[in-house]
Amino acid sequence: MARTVLKFGGTSVADLDRISHVADIVAARAAKGENLAVIVSAMSGETNKLVGLAKGAAGDAVTGVEFDDEYDVVVASGEQVTSGLLALSLRKRGLKARSWLGWQMKMNTREGHGAARIDGFAEDSGFAEAIDAGEVAVVAGFQGVTEEGRVSTLGRGGSDTTAVAVAAALKAVQCDIYTDVDGVYTTDPRIVPQATRLEKVSYEEMLEMASLGAKVLQTRSVELAMNHQVPVRVLSSFAGPDDYNPGTWICNEDEIVEKQVVNGVTYSRDEAKITLYGMEDKPGTSARLFTLLASAGVNVDMIVQANARGEGRANMVFTCTSGDSEKAERVLEDNRSEVLFDSMGVQRDVAKVSVVGVGMKSHTGVAETMFGALSNKNINIDVISTSEIKISVLIDADYTELAVRALHTAFDLDAT
Amino acid sequence: MARTVLKFGGTSVADLDRISHVADIVAARAAKGENLAVIVSAMSGETNKLVGLAKGAAGDAVTGVEFDDEYDVVVASGEQVTSGLLALSLRKRGLKARSWLGWQMKMNTREGHGAARIDGFAEDSGFAEAIDAGEVAVVAGFQGVTEEGRVSTLGRGGSDTTAVAVAAALKAVQCDIYTDVDGVYTTDPRIVPQATRLEKVSYEEMLEMASLGAKVLQTRSVELAMNHQVPVRVLSSFAGPDDYNPGTWICNEDEIVEKQVVNGVTYSRDEAKITLYGMEDKPGTSARLFTLLASAGVNVDMIVQANARGEGRANMVFTCTSGDSEKAERVLEDNRSEVLFDSMGVQRDVAKVSVVGVGMKSHTGVAETMFGALSNKNINIDVISTSEIKISVLIDADYTELAVRALHTAFDLDAT
Repeated sequence: MARTVLKFGGTSVADLDRISHVADIVAARAAKGENLAVIVSAMSGETNKLVGLAKGAAGDAVTGVEFDDEYDVVVASGEQVTSGLLALSLRKRGLKARSWLGWQMKMNTREGHGAARIDGFAEDSGFAEAIDAGEVAVVAGFQGVTEEGRVSTLGRGGSDTTAVAVAAALKAVQCDIYTDVDGVYTTDPRIVPQATRLEKVSYEEMLEMASLGAKVLQTRSVELAMNHQVPVRVLSSFAGPDDYNPGTWICNEDEIVEKQVVNGVTYSRDEAKITLYGMEDKPGTSARLFTLLASAGVNVDMIVQANARGEGRANMVFTCTSGDSEKAERVLEDNRSEVLFDSMGVQRDVAKVSVVGVGMKSHTGVAETMFGALSNKNINIDVISTSEIKISVLIDADYTELAVRALHTAFDLDAT
Repeated sequence: MARTVLKFGGTSVADLDRISHVADIVAARAAKGENLAVIVSAMSGETNKLVGLAKGAAGDAVTGVEFDDEYDVVVASGEQVTSGLLALSLRKRGLKARSWLGWQMKMNTREGHGAARIDGFAEDSGFAEAIDAGEVAVVAGFQGVTEEGRVSTLGRGGSDTTAVAVAAALKAVQCDIYTDVDGVYTTDPRIVPQATRLEKVSYEEMLEMASLGAKVLQTRSVELAMNHQVPVRVLSSFAGPDDYNPGTWICNEDEIVEKQVVNGVTYSRDEAKITLYGMEDKPGTSARLFTLLASAGVNVDMIVQANARGEGRANMVFTCTSGDSEKAERVLEDNRSEVLFDSMGVQRDVAKVSVVGVGMKSHTGVAETMFGALSNKNINIDVISTSEIKISVLIDADYTELAVRALHTAFDLDAT
């Protein structure tokens, strides 16, 4: 009796043909004696359509928490449809299967709507018992239920989080995330054809890679997997049930025998750099600035402060997503009297390129190799930020591919 | 504190513009101090799309009760979307509003899935309290919840039934069914331009008219309204909030002061006539025949038996919907040895034309007028069936419009 969680995203259940293919995969897994919970997303395009309808009904001008509960009611219907369809498709193959919605599974959430957090699962739903009895549980991802009995959703990509949370609650032996790529790569194969699939990657690395732009897994799901020690595997939903499809394991660092110094090169073009020229250089000014930005919902990433004139004035540089940058501009203009500065510059033609690897913890010289490789290609580094296992640089967006290729080669990641 | 139920069908919530118009109507009603429960259907076309997906997933060859529970999960999502959208649209107008799904309202159903029956409402949902507190309850029609906590649906047109059931449970002062016509007419205005809107029609008449082809209300909802004495009004959802829009009241016979002998002429082209020639004329043969048809799910309507040869053999004629007629043919061929007959004839070019009126109870001569009017136009009557308040005849389908017009005139229903 091995409880196993499988998850299929939007492109994997895009239409009836794809759902039928997913049913084949699930049937083959069930035939091996695995007791399965299968988490599904909405059919691709459905969520966008539903979001469009909800925004249309609420009016573009009106947003905010007072609408999020009904927004959730509308949007959660997409996963409901897929869960019913896959259950039907499995029964057609003679399997015992049923759909489970958030409120039936009693996946309780807190912190409201739109981007709720999972609180836990009530134990009296009969969910685990049904799985143990050999019935495939087809779970509508992305949705939960609030204490007040309302529908909640987990925010974009929330089905990954549902999958890991269900795996943790079930103490599943593994959580297989089936997706449109066959694993986690050293970098984007569209840019570097020599990119290779990683056999294993640590939770920490995956976390950095996810937040740095690798779109394989939602950051929150990786956090959750790390906290609950859920072994996660990313593999292809397009392979046949009997095809070679090892995927990439996301696991603890100590399970990775051969550690690379750098395991991945990521990039993100969705960046903006904002410079405040001649900002008043007094204690508390920065705190006020970032409090303002945070309360406006702007997620600030890199920050650099440099003295400009040596007369109590400095230049402050920070980055955020380009999506947030207009909001940031507006809130700064509106509060100019509070955050004193001479002028503001916004650059949206920038990209962030990062190298990630747990090996950095014990190796020196990574920054040296990185900066050297970029310098060799005459790529100018604008801003730098580091963590224990990653180094990120902000560069001119035109150089993105060149930088990624140079770093992939410099850290010996090219396939031979 | 007058609790009132409003219901808007699929064409009334077909897109965001129509939903916005519905929100205007609801807002105007709320402004009058009514405490509202608003039942909504799926956006028109949605249910068909969802049914198509569910059938595609289950496979055409596979149908039956073992799929109905998941079919319900898929199809019920349509009403969920509309309820969220209307709640959003009402909030945009500054109203207090929230959506209620079948499981939240605790509308309990029995008799399984696909065409479940309403059992009642649990009282601990907070539903009535919310309405009394002035919050508009936007109810997803058509859906309920089984004892096992699964999603159920009430079958096609089920939102009418939801509306009446909610009105009965709330002891609402009235149940307004907003639809794409402005009331119940003496007959189909597309055939008879002189057709007039009825001010009032009795439950019994409406019941006959609904089952005889008038598509304004689902038969079950009229039954439910009659049993629970819910005053129902049918009115236009296309009129503006301030337009003259009296609609048609469906109420008790004794509330109708001026009773017409005939109140409506209905027709249905969805008919088939099956004749079994030379059927064995022995006790028990007819019982076997109709038991067989019933167990195959064929709804038999009119029945006529006539002696054919005077030698223990008779011809048996019955009608059913043309949709059921193939099923009927198959089951009869398969069981020829049980229901002994020489040969079978199936005619699908027939129509049923009926006159309905509570006045018939106390008036004679209705049949005479009816048959005379048809005879004057040289329309041949094939089969006749009667009830206390209706007379139906089966005729050649080509004569349908002619017959309807002749009867509308003969019973003085033409507008002057």
